[in-house]
Amino acid sequence: MTTPEQTPRQLVEATMAGIPGPDPRAAVAAAATMDAKVKPRGSLGRLEVLAARIAGIQASSRPTLGHPVVIVCAADHGVARAGVSAYPQEVTGLMLDTFAKGVAAVSVLARAAGARVIVADLGVVQLPAHAPGSATILNRRVRSGTADIASGPAMTLAEAEQAVAHGIGLAQDVVAAGADLVVPGEMGIGNTTTAAVLTALLLDRDPVQVVGPGTGVAGEALARKVTTVEAVLARHRDATGAWQVLASVGGLEIAALAGVVLGCARHRVPVLLDGVVSTAAAVVARALAPQAAGVLLAGHRSPEPGHDVQLADLGLEPVLNLGLRLGEGSGATLAIPVLRAAVALLTEMGSFADLGLDATAPPV
Amino acid sequence: MTTPEQTPRQLVEATMAGIPGPDPRAAVAAAATMDAKVKPRGSLGRLEVLAARIAGIQASSRPTLGHPVVIVCAADHGVARAGVSAYPQEVTGLMLDTFAKGVAAVSVLARAAGARVIVADLGVVQLPAHAPGSATILNRRVRSGTADIASGPAMTLAEAEQAVAHGIGLAQDVVAAGADLVVPGEMGIGNTTTAAVLTALLLDRDPVQVVGPGTGVAGEALARKVTTVEAVLARHRDATGAWQVLASVGGLEIAALAGVVLGCARHRVPVLLDGVVSTAAAVVARALAPQAAGVLLAGHRSPEPGHDVQLADLGLEPVLNLGLRLGEGSGATLAIPVLRAAVALLTEMGSFADLGLDATAPPV
Repeated sequence: MTTPEQTPRQLVEATMAGIPGPDPRAAVAAAATMDAKVKPRGSLGRLEVLAARIAGIQASSRPTLGHPVVIVCAADHGVARAGVSAYPQEVTGLMLDTFAKGVAAVSVLARAAGARVIVADLGVVQLPAHAPGSATILNRRVRSGTADIASGPAMTLAEAEQAVAHGIGLAQDVVAAGADLVVPGEMGIGNTTTAAVLTALLLDRDPVQVVGPGTGVAGEALARKVTTVEAVLARHRDATGAWQVLASVGGLEIAALAGVVLGCARHRVPVLLDGVVSTAAAVVARALAPQAAGVLLAGHRSPEPGHDVQLADLGLEPVLNLGLRLGEGSGATLAIPVLRAAVALLTEMGSFADLGLDATAPPV
Repeated sequence: MTTPEQTPRQLVEATMAGIPGPDPRAAVAAAATMDAKVKPRGSLGRLEVLAARIAGIQASSRPTLGHPVVIVCAADHGVARAGVSAYPQEVTGLMLDTFAKGVAAVSVLARAAGARVIVADLGVVQLPAHAPGSATILNRRVRSGTADIASGPAMTLAEAEQAVAHGIGLAQDVVAAGADLVVPGEMGIGNTTTAAVLTALLLDRDPVQVVGPGTGVAGEALARKVTTVEAVLARHRDATGAWQVLASVGGLEIAALAGVVLGCARHRVPVLLDGVVSTAAAVVARALAPQAAGVLLAGHRSPEPGHDVQLADLGLEPVLNLGLRLGEGSGATLAIPVLRAAVALLTEMGSFADLGLDATAPPV
């Protein structure tokens, strides 16, 4: 855990060095348990694969998903001023208000899934006034939004380290409170542009492969988004290494979510990814510490083209494909009940032996 | 509701005549409510479509899914003796024991989804001894399994009517107890063969388009299944009309589930279909009463080729695609939380007006 003397860099380094990676014995034991259940082998499809994978991540043949938490990180992006979004930058702060009141999409979906939501401000330019009775927005401000990456770096290296360290701290706090599954959620006008740039730089892709409509640009605005990403990539093409790329193109909430992935990986907590922004954070986390990829699961396939690029590179197949393109962690939150059902089968379903039968299921 | 004087045929006729069909005004009102939420229009993808459809079915712009019920109907199939299944016929009865004990896959998945399970015996050949503490298996026996459809009709017309009437009665009972969503589940060794025959006859398809491995046949056994279906189709090719087809090729649990669809349709209760057997029951129900199709939703896409044929014909797109091929209603049960999340958004998510904002969301 954090000690007061640690610098952000030291916390990040210690966390990365301590990531244990999945336990293959637990995964194999869970798969064997599933094979002994009263059903043809493999007939529960992806639920069987998910149960074994979660067992491996938690290093337990009887994994639990009783305390899922959505960690929403919010921040603003200087690049939003280039007109890459359907919304003005002020909307980031307005949406924080809906999170605090529990009426955002992810708030509703989390309640439906029995998940807790925590929200952290990593650098929202214009915060809402705190309404009485609203939930707290955790103050983890690093700076008031990133600088415009079309003309310079998003932030300093020290700021990037601070944002990642904040994410690790958020993960540590929810894990200490019992979280056994984490969904990284996000809010930040312009952040699908930042995610596209990060994906293009870290996975060596062209803009057209990774730029999509986000939550709503089309036509001329979409063309402007592609042009902006091209200009940003030209400006930052010499950035090398995950830290330099992260500081050069941002964003603050994505850096924090990369920290959330690292912190969860350190503590064997599965991370259920949402769309193109949360998966960009996972790509950053893996670039910082490859063994962090062992805790990743994909909740929902985004229609953004960059998401397929990220998922293929991470080797992940989403649980759901329902056409959501809202962000916030909404799609992944919707997948939580499927994961819970998968682990419930491991512990609650009867086996052939329980029923006094031979395990005569053919391995189909 | 049933009156003691009604014959099975009279109950079926009265139910079919009373099906109201969806209410388009409620669906439109729900869609308008969803459009006013704090999000870009359409950004919640299929959740928005599902919420509006459920609103239409329940004829309420604020639909509820607080009391989902899985109705599992079980019966045996004479055609199982032709070696079309990986399992012997005795397994139908053994599986009823796992339902009664609450340790079958669908039992676990229903608990995880907050759904109740009821199980009815429509004609299982070899019933398990009732274990102390087990749940009741409802006795709705019509006959002890169907006759072998390779050599004659599965049952008489009166028996088919009785099975459908039993299904209507089961639906009426759960609706009277508050059910607002029903999943038709099934158990019956050999029933994917029966489902394939029904699909081929009612939708005019060739055996190769509708026969698949079921829960586990492959190689020579799969070839035998195709040959059996071809022989059965040749034997029953003159069967015309839904009732004659149903009596000719069965099965008892499929007839009952067709009745469940009719009973739910009569009372505006959405029916969430599972795989190729439960969807065959929906195809039968629609053949009996076309307006019954208005309450259908598809929960999970089965890998069985016949399921795609059925879904395309019914115009349904499943919520999930997770490779389950177990039956019991398991895949559809897994989709219940997605439907609940969709309707929760309608009632719990904030609107632009709630937040004192203009509804400036672009219609993307």
